[in-house]
Amino acid sequence: MISFRNDYSEGALPEIMQVLHETNFDQTVGYGLDEWCDKARAKIKDAIACPSADVHFLLGGTQANQTCISAFLRSHEAVIAVETGHINVHETGAIETTGHKVLTVMGKDGKVTAAQIRCVVEAHTDEHMVKPKMVYISDSTEIGTIYTLQELEEISACCKELGLYLYLDGARLGSALTAEGNDVTLSDLPRLTDAFYIGGTKNGALFGEAVVLVNPALKEDFRYLIKQHGGMLAKGRLLGIQFATLFTDDLFLRAAKHANECAAKLKKGLAECGVTFMADSVTNQQFPIFTEAQIAKLAEEFMFERWANVDADHAAIRFCTSWATKEEQIDMLIQAVKSL
Amino acid sequence: MISFRNDYSEGALPEIMQVLHETNFDQTVGYGLDEWCDKARAKIKDAIACPSADVHFLLGGTQANQTCISAFLRSHEAVIAVETGHINVHETGAIETTGHKVLTVMGKDGKVTAAQIRCVVEAHTDEHMVKPKMVYISDSTEIGTIYTLQELEEISACCKELGLYLYLDGARLGSALTAEGNDVTLSDLPRLTDAFYIGGTKNGALFGEAVVLVNPALKEDFRYLIKQHGGMLAKGRLLGIQFATLFTDDLFLRAAKHANECAAKLKKGLAECGVTFMADSVTNQQFPIFTEAQIAKLAEEFMFERWANVDADHAAIRFCTSWATKEEQIDMLIQAVKSL
Amino acid sequence: MISFRNDYSEGALPEIMQVLHETNFDQTVGYGLDEWCDKARAKIKDAIACPSADVHFLLGGTQANQTCISAFLRSHEAVIAVETGHINVHETGAIETTGHKVLTVMGKDGKVTAAQIRCVVEAHTDEHMVKPKMVYISDSTEIGTIYTLQELEEISACCKELGLYLYLDGARLGSALTAEGNDVTLSDLPRLTDAFYIGGTKNGALFGEAVVLVNPALKEDFRYLIKQHGGMLAKGRLLGIQFATLFTDDLFLRAAKHANECAAKLKKGLAECGVTFMADSVTNQQFPIFTEAQIAKLAEEFMFERWANVDADHAAIRFCTSWATKEEQIDMLIQAVKSL
Amino acid sequence: MISFRNDYSEGALPEIMQVLHETNFDQTVGYGLDEWCDKARAKIKDAIACPSADVHFLLGGTQANQTCISAFLRSHEAVIAVETGHINVHETGAIETTGHKVLTVMGKDGKVTAAQIRCVVEAHTDEHMVKPKMVYISDSTEIGTIYTLQELEEISACCKELGLYLYLDGARLGSALTAEGNDVTLSDLPRLTDAFYIGGTKNGALFGEAVVLVNPALKEDFRYLIKQHGGMLAKGRLLGIQFATLFTDDLFLRAAKHANECAAKLKKGLAECGVTFMADSVTNQQFPIFTEAQIAKLAEEFMFERWANVDADHAAIRFCTSWATKEEQIDMLIQAVKSL
Repeated sequence: MISFRNDYSEGALPEIMQVLHETNFDQTVGYGLDEWCDKARAKIKDAIACPSADVHFLLGGTQANQTCISAFLRSHEAVIAVETGHINVHETGAIETTGHKVLTVMGKDGKVTAAQIRCVVEAHTDEHMVKPKMVYISDSTEIGTIYTLQELEEISACCKELGLYLYLDGARLGSALTAEGNDVTLSDLPRLTDAFYIGGTKNGALFGEAVVLVNPALKEDFRYLIKQHGGMLAKGRLLGIQFATLFTDDLFLRAAKHANECAAKLKKGLAECGVTFMADSVTNQQFPIFTEAQIAKLAEEFMFERWANVDADHAAIRFCTSWATKEEQIDMLIQAVKSL
Repeated sequence: MISFRNDYSEGALPEIMQVLHETNFDQTVGYGLDEWCDKARAKIKDAIACPSADVHFLLGGTQANQTCISAFLRSHEAVIAVETGHINVHETGAIETTGHKVLTVMGKDGKVTAAQIRCVVEAHTDEHMVKPKMVYISDSTEIGTIYTLQELEEISACCKELGLYLYLDGARLGSALTAEGNDVTLSDLPRLTDAFYIGGTKNGALFGEAVVLVNPALKEDFRYLIKQHGGMLAKGRLLGIQFATLFTDDLFLRAAKHANECAAKLKKGLAECGVTFMADSVTNQQFPIFTEAQIAKLAEEFMFERWANVDADHAAIRFCTSWATKEEQIDMLIQAVKSL
Repeated sequence: MISFRNDYSEGALPEIMQVLHETNFDQTVGYGLDEWCDKARAKIKDAIACPSADVHFLLGGTQANQTCISAFLRSHEAVIAVETGHINVHETGAIETTGHKVLTVMGKDGKVTAAQIRCVVEAHTDEHMVKPKMVYISDSTEIGTIYTLQELEEISACCKELGLYLYLDGARLGSALTAEGNDVTLSDLPRLTDAFYIGGTKNGALFGEAVVLVNPALKEDFRYLIKQHGGMLAKGRLLGIQFATLFTDDLFLRAAKHANECAAKLKKGLAECGVTFMADSVTNQQFPIFTEAQIAKLAEEFMFERWANVDADHAAIRFCTSWATKEEQIDMLIQAVKSL
Repeated sequence: MISFRNDYSEGALPEIMQVLHETNFDQTVGYGLDEWCDKARAKIKDAIACPSADVHFLLGGTQANQTCISAFLRSHEAVIAVETGHINVHETGAIETTGHKVLTVMGKDGKVTAAQIRCVVEAHTDEHMVKPKMVYISDSTEIGTIYTLQELEEISACCKELGLYLYLDGARLGSALTAEGNDVTLSDLPRLTDAFYIGGTKNGALFGEAVVLVNPALKEDFRYLIKQHGGMLAKGRLLGIQFATLFTDDLFLRAAKHANECAAKLKKGLAECGVTFMADSVTNQQFPIFTEAQIAKLAEEFMFERWANVDADHAAIRFCTSWATKEEQIDMLIQAVKSL
């Protein structure tokens, strides 16, 4: 049984496991104040070309989003997201449990548009409604699409004009930045957003997300919020080691590129079999559409997520590739589809 | 300047003012434990034909909704409402601030349907999403429509089947129950819902809503929640006096009926002038559509709410009648529209 | 049966009832934006000699405290209060339910001291603990004592030095300001505090507290918070009418002074009978100590609160006077004590 | 520089690192539903002799406490803890941020007593105060002391009688259970508590705590709460692997015993030098008292926490041993103290 179920099916990149092993008996201080975390922070600030940023390491994506949003907003302030956004659907109300409404827009290809942001702000006119104060976007999105630089520029300008913070969820940022057609770089993000996070969990770390705070107004007391939301790891060095390793010799981008290449090969192979897709993803998630019978057949050999019903007899499923995917696994999958 | 802006422009029904005056120097215990509150509770339980219900008095609608929802739900549980629902739009995130997500459905004529409820529940499959646990409806709705008995029966059955609480916001319940075409009575509500509130503020009280808890599972410690959310009035007797008076000699229904009759007269008068409406309201809110020029003209003599843009040159406005509306005010308004 | 149970046993001052009656059919806009609220705000700003203050009207004390604290603090920030403080003991966790810890100090005569504040701040050294950011005091206190001007000056200076907001709960501010020995005036408060509220409920209003925001940093979007916490009264004019009336011809201070004089007479009468007191209160709450047998005897004719056990056979009870207390009621109570 | 600063200075037990290494490329499902987690759950249920318990794996202690308390309590319910309790002092208000008040008792030797619990419950008489519903204890405590079986029996009986849940924070449970004088076993805990957690972070895991839910009333939907509070690790197997390893061949107890033996040797060595202690700890935290000059001298060679001021010239410091402490490190420390 081969799993294309998600991009966190295996442990970690061998480079990471190696350093964890080598440093296992070193003594460090706790809670992210150690030298490894310092080193990782320096490397990330270098990679994003923003020496003034604050970088914090958290354990997972829901935690990063919850901590950031509850740190940035007052209780009557709300965050705008696309309907399919992770914070809106897949975090069990983690945002609402800290008191904030998620205002949704329909989106286009899984992405928020500047025009939709403007609409939401215009509809919230007084103190009987929540006050939109932040925009949440993901790159890549939940359906594998990516933002162009121009789209981000427009959203960023719109947010600045309307007094909104722009926050980018980078759970799959590596995949977005190394996708075919992408024209955004790590160093664009500090200029365009107020805060963002760089995802480790879905790109070869055991766990961990690096939150980058760019806007000085959002930096104060952030460590209090990390602690309060259960995100301050005692052995914080584990995060430092992982991110220092990911940001050495471009490992972060190389790992993501590998996942994308596997996905591109799969996409091409499936398309050649005549398979159609729910969304035109250029990243490591692919959403092909099959009949129920085909899905049942594929499930005998492969693990994957059922994503959305298309009609009475068709559904989209998700194949997810990762840093750990082997080319022969893709070959086997394409072969299996050919034999359907 | 005559105001049709809302149904809380004046003070209170003279009958209420009279009892407040007469009892002003009586000494009572505080916090809703006095004889007037007891009397009001008894009268309400009689009116709804449900001696086993618990009745609590709160100060306003947002407070009633917030207190009930936070009392009924665990932190990962969510409430389903129509998109235009008061809790979703006009309570400044009062539900989210106590930790709960509002899941929305499109609705039909401003009303939630059983089929839509089922859809939401089916889409929430696991612990990565919130758990729908409650349905919120308003009767009359935000656009003045009312639920039929059959619609309520269907929703109620659906909720029971799916393990959801059904809660009815009765801010304008009086108006709904006395509307033309209504076939629901006060005594249907305990059978169909788990909890509901009977609105005083918008039906002739200075303030106050009577929360009725029918489902025994929802009754425990409710007074703690009232206190915690700032709803426990020191001079609780003010609420008892008002509701005891409203539920004497059918004053509650008579006051609402008067408002509806004024609205019906207005609706008929405007229709005769060829005016069209945004929604077919049978209650005390009417939403006629005018040109911008007409709206500007009407605003010289009357106060009203601008409700929604219809097209570049047309908008719907809201005229609200109440227990205090005088027939000649309706005549003047119709006359003014005729002269447009 | 005569009640000395609290200072909210009766309705409202006749002057207030009169204006409510006279204005009952006037039409006003809702939510505190009417002319009466404007008038009341102007009168209060005049009385406190602080034209730049923002004044908001809320319904009760718990609501005022909850709304202010949740408006002023970020989620990791805490408020310092005396152990007996209302927010710590008698608000059912209304502060914690909005996410904030109440840090307590022992106090002296029911009052927080500058030295105790300093101690708490020094003990909170890093992000593993909450961050003290606000001091909560009440004048008069829960045991009827009052702050001297010098004490307030010291606390205020200490808060400024340590970067803490100072907030004063004035549920019984009228009683404090008219107490024998008091040297604080309404116009001292804007200079000494960042925010405070002037209590109406316990000084002759049907309900209502006037929140005064002095520090500009605390003013932004406060109406959103009022709405979110269920404190925005539809018929907001009721609050405007009451406070405009209280602040006409010094009614606010006169009503409180009457309550204090009744309490002073009672205190003197009891002392002459040899009764001792739990605290040396100069305001409208008196805490005499009796044997259990005496308490049982008194309870046959009078209502009062049992306050605290003193020893196996003695307890302190509370007699509360108010604007509505009649001199002959005091005489009867003293007489009853004499006959014990 | 040798660190006795805490018990999380190093990575993980070699046995754990070994399994992480061996399984690195295995594919598993996410979120704790994999075979390793199943295996770990089975081993823990075996070790506690409670097959009906639910076992969940979380990432850290603050997160475990926050998730449990917010899962178990309604919003007006409070948790009783000793003043020095971790949830009261060192979690940045993580409990309050989910809405719950922490009610404190003075404790005795760092431990809550049944009598103190009873006192708190008796003082909370009505809905104007929070409702005590849960008792939080830690074993070992913050000052290294341990509960006797009799103490736990008394607390447990008291909680059952008063309708309170009993929850045990086992961040250092291994150390408590292997301490000299301890008469509590893992299998006592399901009988005595409603829920508890077994700490991995401070006993040789990279991270991780195993929450054990015994009371069926507390089990429902717990995974929703884990997710909502950011505790659902994508690569959940990391937790399964670690706890399965810890509960193989008694590694959990052996690792803790080693730490205790190092601490006992240190305690004995220091006592022989005439050093006195702030508390009589039998576990892996020792709190010797030194002069400021001595502390400065020790700090040249060793890392440790300053704990509490004793007088103008003396302070208690904390030496913490762990699974990774080497006997020669203890020797060096004793030698250094001898040379002071």
